[in-house]
Amino acid sequence: MACKAFTISLLCFTIMTSFQATLAFANNKAISRDKPCKHMVLYFHNIMYNGTNQANATSIKIHDSHGALGPFDFGTLVVFNDPMTADHQLLSTPVARAQGFYFYDMKDNYNAWFALTLVFNSTEHKGTMSIMGDDIIALEERDLAVVGGTGDFFLTRGIATLRKNAVQGIEYFSLQMEIKLYECY
Amino acid sequence: MACKAFTISLLCFTIMTSFQATLAFANNKAISRDKPCKHMVLYFHNIMYNGTNQANATSIKIHDSHGALGPFDFGTLVVFNDPMTADHQLLSTPVARAQGFYFYDMKDNYNAWFALTLVFNSTEHKGTMSIMGDDIIALEERDLAVVGGTGDFFLTRGIATLRKNAVQGIEYFSLQMEIKLYECY
Amino acid sequence: MACKAFTISLLCFTIMTSFQATLAFANNKAISRDKPCKHMVLYFHNIMYNGTNQANATSIKIHDSHGALGPFDFGTLVVFNDPMTADHQLLSTPVARAQGFYFYDMKDNYNAWFALTLVFNSTEHKGTMSIMGDDIIALEERDLAVVGGTGDFFLTRGIATLRKNAVQGIEYFSLQMEIKLYECY
Repeated sequence: MACKAFTISLLCFTIMTSFQATLAFANNKAISRDKPCKHMVLYFHNIMYNGTNQANATSIKIHDSHGALGPFDFGTLVVFNDPMTADHQLLSTPVARAQGFYFYDMKDNYNAWFALTLVFNSTEHKGTMSIMGDDIIALEERDLAVVGGTGDFFLTRGIATLRKNAVQGIEYFSLQMEIKLYECY
Repeated sequence: MACKAFTISLLCFTIMTSFQATLAFANNKAISRDKPCKHMVLYFHNIMYNGTNQANATSIKIHDSHGALGPFDFGTLVVFNDPMTADHQLLSTPVARAQGFYFYDMKDNYNAWFALTLVFNSTEHKGTMSIMGDDIIALEERDLAVVGGTGDFFLTRGIATLRKNAVQGIEYFSLQMEIKLYECY
Repeated sequence: MACKAFTISLLCFTIMTSFQATLAFANNKAISRDKPCKHMVLYFHNIMYNGTNQANATSIKIHDSHGALGPFDFGTLVVFNDPMTADHQLLSTPVARAQGFYFYDMKDNYNAWFALTLVFNSTEHKGTMSIMGDDIIALEERDLAVVGGTGDFFLTRGIATLRKNAVQGIEYFSLQMEIKLYECY
């Protein structure tokens, strides 16, 4: 009988502990940085309008600061609608579009603030992912926040890591964008 | 006695299962797209400044791309402070303001990228909701991400679906905005 | 024996209740507005470029509406890279940078819409926090939404409350920014 009482107490204790542990997880969810629920690597390709390349251009400068705050274009603002490809080549079939803008915002180096939406409309994925943050071009890797999504990416959140892919003059640059999502529904 | 041991084992199994199920839900929360915790339908009304309608205008073009990338205004940027009404009529008493901006970003159709905050200050709701995403005007319905909020909408997240309400010349357009929130505190 | 059966029923009931309560919390997480998981107070300092102060300026007006929609600069757009200090003094060593933009968007008062990223790179914090929302300057306190983060602020969410700190002419203003985070990983 004493044994039975002990067993039941133990059970109660286990229940209480489980309950508290679960609350702790609920409040501070059990997310591990190494275990995204979705992982993809895409390539962003930006071709700036130069006055004559209307057919190929994917972006347009809508304000040029003309060096007012130094040589790194602080204040220059660009709107883009860029193809995203699954490999690093500009001419591969796009798997998404990146629609948004960036502006440079540093006096002593290139540094770009981005807000954009990835728009997927393929057999594999339909929906959008919205991203914002700072592209500290001086760093090899820079993380932006994935702050929401729709469709296949309903309510998602995560990290988009940018790395240099290619640069060609002042008209073309390409970035690798590694996306790790941690909330998938 | 064997029966008791079996019952207690069953209990233990139930507890463990509950615990694991709950963790799974905590990590990948039990959100159903059909069951928002808050649902509302509002109407967005945008009257563009045309040089003479200062009293009525609710928005202003701050950059005009003058067709540099084709006839769909790629790069044209508009700042707005628009009334949101509970029915589809412009002249109804506003229940909120939509404050933000949009720019067109497509060469072969109208397509607008939005970032805005809905500001509520009524007896019914006080607080804000911030929204960003892509308004693919060619689609009948397009979803934007609700990425955060304050006040009555503290930490909220969800989806804002846009549908055409009315267009009148180049100066007035109105959108239905159906908001479904899935995180309410 | 009846007693034992009753005890076990009670246990079952407790387990079921715990399970349901936990699900409820998981779906509508147990977040209390009074108990942020991270709390900090910083000061934002904005020095506008005036044509001659290139060395000190931390922000630049990239569009001036010249009063088209009244005296409160509706449509005027500013890009900034502002020091954030731990006390209210401009000349204290910055603990972060605030990189982003704001524009005025009201006809009958000053009202600014902000989107920015706080960039931390110190021994205390490394990472970023992205913020968006409406700075209703007429109110003593105005809340913006913290919508995401990276590094030490991985996936964070919360509220950034702005209060006036100092204003000096049209070139300098400073805001207190009290940050309360409710999701910390």
